[in-house]
Order: sequence, then structure tokens, then C-alpha cells
Amino acid sequence: MPESADFTKAREQATALVRAQLNAILRVPQGPEKRLIEAMRYAALEGGKGFRPFLCLATSQLFDVPQSQAVRVAAALECVHCYSLAHDDLPAMDDDDLRRGRPSLHKAYDEATAILAGDALLTLAFEILADPATHPEASIRLALVTNLARAAGMNGMVGGQTLDILSPDLSLDVAELARLQALKTGALIGFAVEAGAVLGAIDAPQTAALNDYAQDLGLAFQIADDVLDVTGASQTLGKTAGKDMAEGKATFVSLLGLEGARQETEKRAASAIAHLAPFGPEAEPLRQAAQFVILRKN
Amino acid sequence: MPESADFTKAREQATALVRAQLNAILRVPQGPEKRLIEAMRYAALEGGKGFRPFLCLATSQLFDVPQSQAVRVAAALECVHCYSLAHDDLPAMDDDDLRRGRPSLHKAYDEATAILAGDALLTLAFEILADPATHPEASIRLALVTNLARAAGMNGMVGGQTLDILSPDLSLDVAELARLQALKTGALIGFAVEAGAVLGAIDAPQTAALNDYAQDLGLAFQIADDVLDVTGASQTLGKTAGKDMAEGKATFVSLLGLEGARQETEKRAASAIAHLAPFGPEAEPLRQAAQFVILRKN
Repeated sequence: MPESADFTKAREQATALVRAQLNAILRVPQGPEKRLIEAMRYAALEGGKGFRPFLCLATSQLFDVPQSQAVRVAAALECVHCYSLAHDDLPAMDDDDLRRGRPSLHKAYDEATAILAGDALLTLAFEILADPATHPEASIRLALVTNLARAAGMNGMVGGQTLDILSPDLSLDVAELARLQALKTGALIGFAVEAGAVLGAIDAPQTAALNDYAQDLGLAFQIADDVLDVTGASQTLGKTAGKDMAEGKATFVSLLGLEGARQETEKRAASAIAHLAPFGPEAEPLRQAAQFVILRKN
Repeated sequence: MPESADFTKAREQATALVRAQLNAILRVPQGPEKRLIEAMRYAALEGGKGFRPFLCLATSQLFDVPQSQAVRVAAALECVHCYSLAHDDLPAMDDDDLRRGRPSLHKAYDEATAILAGDALLTLAFEILADPATHPEASIRLALVTNLARAAGMNGMVGGQTLDILSPDLSLDVAELARLQALKTGALIGFAVEAGAVLGAIDAPQTAALNDYAQDLGLAFQIADDVLDVTGASQTLGKTAGKDMAEGKATFVSLLGLEGARQETEKRAASAIAHLAPFGPEAEPLRQAAQFVILRKN
């Protein structure tokens, strides 16, 4: 079963909208500082599957949030996602020369520029969210700033990346690895999914259901990533294949076996879809996202 | 003329208050992720002159802002300042092994941890500002988030650091170097000074005067830094002396000479003090801060 045509189209549209937004924000100036902006554009405006932007736009649509608002939040989220890739690829971190089928940022520019462009993208994300164009109500913009900071920071993505760096020495079991990935990948996917509910000022029970969906989806996404790390070629993946296993990091494949990991992906994706029951047929795009996680080839 | 005893005391008190605040926020958890929090504490809780926290508290006092609010903003500012030092000291950037008289963060831990702890401190700054404990009014918290993002980001500190990295190839003149430093150092000092006005919801003319004060103060601070880089010993400075000149970076001393740079520091500090005229005797601590810039030995 291939990825649904609807989903492909929606994902490509989300990517295009976010790029247009960031293209307008990241104007290249005259003078030597243009190097920084060009590096930020290289990191954030090219490549990528558009999975997080799609999620942000899809949940926003579910709650009738104006697209212009959702696109700004998705752009902020993409800044954070792309900064994390730029820093994770650095020699002192995962030391990866290939990203999205091109040289990673520090190979295309240099390490100092990659560090600074990452720092600037992270900072820009909060500037975008705090801007009145994102939502007329100050309390909602603040909720977005708080949620993104928590998802991205020491108790979220950066905390997970710290565990990931340490993981060759940690002998993680499946539950510990799931916790690591819930921080490293799940927190930002959770932000993407919940942002629509925040923009729509939706009540707590619906937010809780979306949160459960995001947790399962994020885990399914990461287990699928581990499967692709083994079965995929670097060329298809657009990043170096087989690295985690080679570095002695625990992966869902090393702990569950290839077939066990595949089954776990499907189980988690099904569980994600089950959490969407309260939302009826309008949540179909989010169900397709869970299907995509199982089917994706890169 | 030594640094005034009042100013010394106020600076030490500001440092202690900010440390207590960050100490409460950065609780060390159980488990392997404690390494990240410990590194953040190493970067943000030890050493430092407390110059920026002092400025933030002093202008807040000028406008009768509750100290508890000012301390939270100063803590956020300190997170950003310390993240920038941690990243600037990395081998790919300024490659400095000594900071605040101790091994710099990547020497005390490792490069990956220094990158991640910096990222987490930057993220934490926005979480602190967005918290209702910082100010009851959402619009004021948002103004702080926006101002900090602008001061710290691509058109502020990170933009200035980019120019600084490129500067050995740029043959800067005095005006261009002043612009570089206005971005790299001045923007965050500007945030520190203006934060009190934002917290106090002060009208535009007074904010403009503070902005002018901050610009002159920041420049005086940086020119004094260049003088100390030549005249100071690494032991007194707590960081490696003589590096900028050795790397072929333009400095105010290389462009103006030692005596010319000293005179320019005094001129800028006097100009900073002149901008404080509208505030009367209550701005005395801010005048002492300008005096401190001339007198400081590290």
C-alpha cells in the first residue's frame, strides 16, 4: 500500500507554505553577515519531509484555526527542528556529513557557522511565536512559547539528545530507549500536534487525546527510523545509514530484532489512530500521518 | 579611584539573587541526564561579574518594579549570556580553554555537552520569561520574549558573533568595529537596561534615553575589554589574554592605540552618564555602572 495521494499532497503543501513563510522572514542582507542568514536558509529552507509542519497544519485545520496562524507556528517549529539537526550533525555530536541528501550544514559552511546558524534559528523560533501575527491573543502566544521551550529544552529534546550521546555507555532496555526517544523526537512531535489545539483554544480532554496520539505517533516514527537505519541505503535516506548500530547505541532493532521492531511500529501507529476516535472523520489527515510512518521509505 | 563600595555591594547582591533563582530552577535530577543540568549549572551559576544582572535590577528599581520580577528577567538574561560564552569558547569558535578563571565548559565536560548545555540555557531563558511569575501581564511577558529574541538572535548577538568570527578577513575600521560590538555585546546590555522599563511599562521617551545610555555603556564596556586584553594578565581576567590581537582581529586598541582606546572608553562612559540626566539622583547606580566600566580590572 503506497502513501495516500491526499497525504502526499498535504505534506508537500505544508512544506511549501512553511518555506514561503521562512523565505519572507530570512531575507539575505548585504554585508558579511549574509553568511549567517544563508546558512540558516540552507538548514531550514531545503529538503525535509515536512512531517512536523504537516502535523501542525492538520491539527489546526481540525479546530478551524486560520491557516496563516498555523503556518507561522509550523515555521517556528521547523526552525527548532532544523537547528537541532544542524547541531546534532556536528563532529562533536553525531558527526554526520550527510543530511537530506546534501552535505550537512557544517560541511557546506564550517563548524562555527553551523553552531551560530543553529543558535539563531532556535532564537528566531521564539521571536516568530511572540509576534502578534501568530495569534491576536497574548495568552495564546505565551502558551506557544512555553510549550515550545519545554518541548525543545532540558526536559525535552535537548535532554533526549544528551541521553542519546551517552547511550553507548548506558545499556538501555526498551522502556528506557522509549523514554529517550519520547524526549528526543516525541516532545517536538507532541508540540506540532498540540499547537493546533492551543491556537484553537481547545479544552483539556481533546488536548489529552491529541497528546496520546502524538506520543504513540512519535514512538512509531522513531522505531521506523531505526528500521530504516538498517534496511535503507544512505542515498534513499539522505543521511548516513547504519550509524547508530555501528556506534553501539541501543536501537529498537538491536533490542527487538528487525521483525519485532516492524511489528512495534504497526502496533504504535494503530494505537495512535485509536486515540483519534473522538475527532471523527475530520481527523483523517492525522490517521494518514500514522499510516505514512509505517510506509515511509526515508 | 576604586570602584564605589555601593556599586560593588549592589553587583554582588544582583549576582547572588540571580544565582539563587537559577539554583531553584536548575534542580539536578536522578539518572544520566543529570550531566546536562550539572553542565548548565557550571556555566550559569559560578563566576561572572554580575554586570548584566546588576543593570537589569538597577533599572527595574528605578521604575519601582518588584524585585522578584526583575530577578527572573535577570536570570533569563544570564542564561543567554552564559550560553553565548559556552558556545563562543568552543574549539570551532574562539577555542578558549579558560573562562571565569576555570576551565571553560567544553574542557570541564566535553564539546557535545557544552553545545547541548548552551542550547538548553538559551531555551530556558524563554521559558523563564513566558512564566506568569515573571509578570502578571501577558503583553509584558511577550515584550520581554520579543526583545530578548531580537537582542540575542541573527540581528543581535549571534549576528555580531558571526562578524567577529569573520573579522580577521574583514579589515574593519572603527565604525565597523563599533557596529560589530553593538551587535555582539551591546544588544544584550541594551536588553538588560531596557528590561526594567518594559517591566515598569514606562513610556517611550524614557526608554529612548535608556537605550542611548545602554549603547554608550556597551561600547565603553567593549573598548575597555580590548584594553584589558592587552594590559591584563590571564590570571586576573579569568580568560586568555591577548587572543584577539594574536588572531589578527581588529580591536579598538589596534585601531586607536592603547591611549586612544582608553580615552574613547572614558568619552563613551561620560556620554552614557549624560543620557541619564532625565532620571535625576535615583539613577546613581547606573552612573556607578558606567564608572565601573572605566575602572574595572577584569
